[in-house]
Amino acid sequence: MIPLTLSSPSLTRLVLFTSRYSHSPFLRNFSSLPLINRKLLYKPPFGVRCHASSSNSSSFTAKSSKEIRKAQTKVVVDEKLTSIRRLFSDPGVGIDAYVIPSQDAHQSEFIAECYARRAYLSGFTGSAGTAIVTKDKAALWTDGRYFLQAEKQLNSSWSLMRAGNPGVPTASEWVADVLAPGGRVGIDPFLFSADAAEELKEVIAKKNHQLVYLYNVNLVDEIWKDSRPKPPSKQIRIHDLKYAGVDVASKLLTLRNQIMDAGASAIVISMLDEIAWVLNLRGSDVPHSPVMYAYLIVEVDQAHLFIDSSKVTAEVKDHLKNAGIELRPYDSILQEIDSLAARGAQLLMDPSSLNVAIISTYKSACERYSRNSESEERAKPKFTDSSSGYIANPSGIYMQSPISWAKAIKNDAELQGMKNSHLRDAAALAHFWAWLEEEVHKNANLTEVDVADRLLEFRSLQDGFMDTSFDTISGSGANGAIIHYKPEPESCSRVDPKKLFLLDSGAQYVDGTTDITRTVHFSEPSTREKECFTRVLQGHIALDQAVFPEGTPGFVLDGFARSSLWKIGLDYRHGTGHGVGAALNVHEGPQSISFRYGNMNPLQNGMIVSNEPGYYEDHAFGIRIENLLHVRDAETPNRFGGVTYLGFEKLTFFPIQAKMVDVSLLSDTEIDWLNSYHAEVWEKVSPLLEGSSTQQWLWNNTRPLAKP
Amino acid sequence: MIPLTLSSPSLTRLVLFTSRYSHSPFLRNFSSLPLINRKLLYKPPFGVRCHASSSNSSSFTAKSSKEIRKAQTKVVVDEKLTSIRRLFSDPGVGIDAYVIPSQDAHQSEFIAECYARRAYLSGFTGSAGTAIVTKDKAALWTDGRYFLQAEKQLNSSWSLMRAGNPGVPTASEWVADVLAPGGRVGIDPFLFSADAAEELKEVIAKKNHQLVYLYNVNLVDEIWKDSRPKPPSKQIRIHDLKYAGVDVASKLLTLRNQIMDAGASAIVISMLDEIAWVLNLRGSDVPHSPVMYAYLIVEVDQAHLFIDSSKVTAEVKDHLKNAGIELRPYDSILQEIDSLAARGAQLLMDPSSLNVAIISTYKSACERYSRNSESEERAKPKFTDSSSGYIANPSGIYMQSPISWAKAIKNDAELQGMKNSHLRDAAALAHFWAWLEEEVHKNANLTEVDVADRLLEFRSLQDGFMDTSFDTISGSGANGAIIHYKPEPESCSRVDPKKLFLLDSGAQYVDGTTDITRTVHFSEPSTREKECFTRVLQGHIALDQAVFPEGTPGFVLDGFARSSLWKIGLDYRHGTGHGVGAALNVHEGPQSISFRYGNMNPLQNGMIVSNEPGYYEDHAFGIRIENLLHVRDAETPNRFGGVTYLGFEKLTFFPIQAKMVDVSLLSDTEIDWLNSYHAEVWEKVSPLLEGSSTQQWLWNNTRPLAKP
Repeated sequence: MIPLTLSSPSLTRLVLFTSRYSHSPFLRNFSSLPLINRKLLYKPPFGVRCHASSSNSSSFTAKSSKEIRKAQTKVVVDEKLTSIRRLFSDPGVGIDAYVIPSQDAHQSEFIAECYARRAYLSGFTGSAGTAIVTKDKAALWTDGRYFLQAEKQLNSSWSLMRAGNPGVPTASEWVADVLAPGGRVGIDPFLFSADAAEELKEVIAKKNHQLVYLYNVNLVDEIWKDSRPKPPSKQIRIHDLKYAGVDVASKLLTLRNQIMDAGASAIVISMLDEIAWVLNLRGSDVPHSPVMYAYLIVEVDQAHLFIDSSKVTAEVKDHLKNAGIELRPYDSILQEIDSLAARGAQLLMDPSSLNVAIISTYKSACERYSRNSESEERAKPKFTDSSSGYIANPSGIYMQSPISWAKAIKNDAELQGMKNSHLRDAAALAHFWAWLEEEVHKNANLTEVDVADRLLEFRSLQDGFMDTSFDTISGSGANGAIIHYKPEPESCSRVDPKKLFLLDSGAQYVDGTTDITRTVHFSEPSTREKECFTRVLQGHIALDQAVFPEGTPGFVLDGFARSSLWKIGLDYRHGTGHGVGAALNVHEGPQSISFRYGNMNPLQNGMIVSNEPGYYEDHAFGIRIENLLHVRDAETPNRFGGVTYLGFEKLTFFPIQAKMVDVSLLSDTEIDWLNSYHAEVWEKVSPLLEGSSTQQWLWNNTRPLAKP
Repeated sequence: MIPLTLSSPSLTRLVLFTSRYSHSPFLRNFSSLPLINRKLLYKPPFGVRCHASSSNSSSFTAKSSKEIRKAQTKVVVDEKLTSIRRLFSDPGVGIDAYVIPSQDAHQSEFIAECYARRAYLSGFTGSAGTAIVTKDKAALWTDGRYFLQAEKQLNSSWSLMRAGNPGVPTASEWVADVLAPGGRVGIDPFLFSADAAEELKEVIAKKNHQLVYLYNVNLVDEIWKDSRPKPPSKQIRIHDLKYAGVDVASKLLTLRNQIMDAGASAIVISMLDEIAWVLNLRGSDVPHSPVMYAYLIVEVDQAHLFIDSSKVTAEVKDHLKNAGIELRPYDSILQEIDSLAARGAQLLMDPSSLNVAIISTYKSACERYSRNSESEERAKPKFTDSSSGYIANPSGIYMQSPISWAKAIKNDAELQGMKNSHLRDAAALAHFWAWLEEEVHKNANLTEVDVADRLLEFRSLQDGFMDTSFDTISGSGANGAIIHYKPEPESCSRVDPKKLFLLDSGAQYVDGTTDITRTVHFSEPSTREKECFTRVLQGHIALDQAVFPEGTPGFVLDGFARSSLWKIGLDYRHGTGHGVGAALNVHEGPQSISFRYGNMNPLQNGMIVSNEPGYYEDHAFGIRIENLLHVRDAETPNRFGGVTYLGFEKLTFFPIQAKMVDVSLLSDTEIDWLNSYHAEVWEKVSPLLEGSSTQQWLWNNTRPLAKP
């Protein structure tokens, strides 16, 4: 899956679609742009079938702007807006505008339906968007992927703000401009990271507006009422130590050392994958990510998990008890934060991921208790114990979460699970592609959604299969050029035997997470398609083969994957690689390989990244070739500077369609790469297909190319 | 010349030798380190010959630490330190420490002898270093290039601070630590950019010290007295319009538009190359750079050049008068700044290059006059005219100098001059190398300095030759591994016929500036030397052939030049490319191609950069291959994203020694590159050698390599 929508904490300040082309020559520093921009997944009802049709009736077909204008002149009385505005003047609210982001309280990429507030209020179901409602205006920001969809889904009460287009203000700038001076801008403080809230606050403060945290009420929930879905309550499970590699006690020991090293007495963790990783637990509260809604507070001598206890089985309760972790209600997090401040706990918090409700509660509690202790003639706080980080006047330690690093650097068991699950995934894919090619050659009437569904069936036959790791991107012809295309049953296209077909998909297995893209042609690709594919492949090979000194941030390698496309004036508007969790989120930080040059986090031995250059020709075709790679010591004959040099080892073993390759463009080294990769694919995957007709398909697709 | 010591304004906040290997995993942002670190050139007396000797008596030979310690236990009474400390308590001084940087008042890379204050006071003559004297301590910071030299040159009153070594504090941190709280740290405010002063101030403020600007006295000059060299007073000359391409009136028109666009009424320029460029003037106040000491203030309707008028010939006076520029004494700059503030002039200033004496004088004058005008019941300032940027309460506009961009993007005449001068330079180099090879084969006893001197002679025979563009780096064997090696007559090595020889040199011609490095072997290179050379060459070719979208910062391409070395665990500890002026400074900004990732300035059509990857094996050999390149439209068959794609065109045409190349490592494309480059070298340079025996040398050295 492509890394454009990476929601790792380290990327929160970067804007989607901020292209490299916008650098001012007088720019001194990296842009840090204040757009609130997190993913939201709106889960459409399952089970609806796609209406198969041979016409290309994509949901993204553009209307003429005249039609759109005509549609928008119909004055719609939007009852949701009327209701929410009525709440603005309620006692205890008192605001002039309300900002509704896509997020849940944990900055999750995929969220539960009950938290899809922006989608409910605005009707726009795309994964990224921010809505703002004032007393007389309503506006929604989204990026280029979703302009057409938003035009269709928003009624005329809403203005669509095309983020990234020239002259379009950011959400923060807009609200600062439209309010009369002294305006009060309300937010649900659980839905903003402390960093995002701070940015919003700064921008609106310039126009003398105030940011108001509404702790006790979410205005969208108020009007959503009974039709709001219930919060998820599925039971959580233990992630087996044979896959986790390190037990909870050891992880907590390391974490507690890091807490003490940082001069803190406790850490507050809200990222759901970090909690799942530390506790060796997995959940199913959201689609695609095996996590559960919770907060975790680890102190030096105790730890509390804030979670709906109905999700916790007896077995999990024992598991937690053995690790010294007590349960608390999910909703009691702020109470606990207050009580920690009272006890003088110095909290380690990551302001890029932790919501401002928590951080702000802590800060004001610290101030309050500090004033109290002064008024009590500087009486010692109740639990002051400087050796374990409890101090008289704590104020918090703000830094990147140490767990994001610990989680990103996989241990041997996690790597083994990733390798094993990738081979089973390859076996499922082989069955699927053998089936698909046969069907298409029989001229079967298959839609993009049919294909995605069938792929899911093949995968679910594999041991340990749990879920898809994201919505399958199944795009025929021009749909392949829509970078985050999500085929919908009502509107998707037929898989056209005469066009390129791009399939980006992945799975969650009990032992690992996969993510692979292949692009194929079912008949004869054009010269143009072959040239573009071959250059994408050259970029893929260049990154795969890169060796680099430890400490190198991923962006240094991004150009390697583009260089071959650049030579003929082509490029792609997304990053080249994202981190991947081990039986966890398909997108994780802190590393990335991207032209967003702000992410200085170096690639390290044990990390996993995707390698997915692409090329997209609007209204024609899309190409992407994606493998997952494991960062590892390169064992170079020299070690200049006394440092380790790193390289990549492939996790993904699946054929790259040979007919798409223009061999005349490849160097001998590149041909050798492809041939030896295919030899390895055959060697590793064919034993899993023994006795099946699919083995012949794999054999056919792993034959070496001749050098010209 | 290698870009490690780039002194462009945009790099002031970066520290030399801050390696990529030091990124903390918890680092969020780019480091911005507060080291004061600018180049100073100490010009040794000319005419001293090198004692030729076959032993490798480099000035960098290390003493054992025991010897050093022994030498340092001799207590030396340092009279300069005694004298300078006596001044600390003078009325009007009153300080506890004094910081002596390498800079002149213009942040120049090469400075006049009279400004070499740090070298005079400390005895350390290296190009980079900062000295701090307190009442009882004296310390000098320099980087790894100069540790051995500094050990030899500093007496025992001085502590050597090895910048970049673990545990070594920065100069600012150190002075903040050693003073008793409430200390007063004095500086000459002319010698610090406003940015550097601000950083120093912030660091020492943490320990409650105060930064004190001593406007009226430089303490080193006070003790230097009569032996201090006189300021340079050589006459300046007009840079012919046929080389400059654009006349002064047009440059001023553009500049004035930029001033007004920025909402300012005037610009203050202190960078000497910017002044020379705007005024189409050249000087010879410093070695290697054709500039003259001056300040320039351009207002919307007038302009003043602050310069020692004895340097200004009648012809130059006319030239300036025609452009509406009046002369003022160099020393009257602060008076003029004050009077501009009084007139309500909104000054455009670049705090990374402009000294804090100017910026601070302006700020306090603005405050003073603003208070005055308030006390005069808000009387209008005398010349308030908001249409031309004169306003009641100016406070300055701080941004990157627009001239640094205008200067970096060469016009056609400048490019033509660069091309022409490079061909003449190549002819001189051909004569030189033909001579050198013959001498070495005759086993002549030539030293590194002899060779540099002879090269200068060959160059000076070429039309339009003015000067070297930097001190020639002429390194035999192990000396080639010392990145900024400067052979000294007393201590340099013989050019060893059995070792690699690295020669990095350049010239100032009336029409252009050159900078080229070649590495050769006079007999048989080892397999190791050939492998390393070939990988450096592959990096050179990869960068030369790169194509990239407009807006790409240079650092994106840096890895291209390292990739081949990285594959076997090798690297080099300097950047890959620096900007070069047109008949101006050999190092200029704002662009660079480096692993210092903070420089976001994009490469643009018309810029010139060096391409100089290398590899240095300590105590053995050094390799560097350097050409200058011109950034230009690549005319790609596609223009994805509607942008222009850029590439490079070579300016340097000179053979790369074929015997150093291990052809088996090169791809067909790389062999083709080398062969077609050599064909072009022959075609362009041989006509300039007609009738000479050197032509045969060039023929021999441009024959195509066979593919293996």
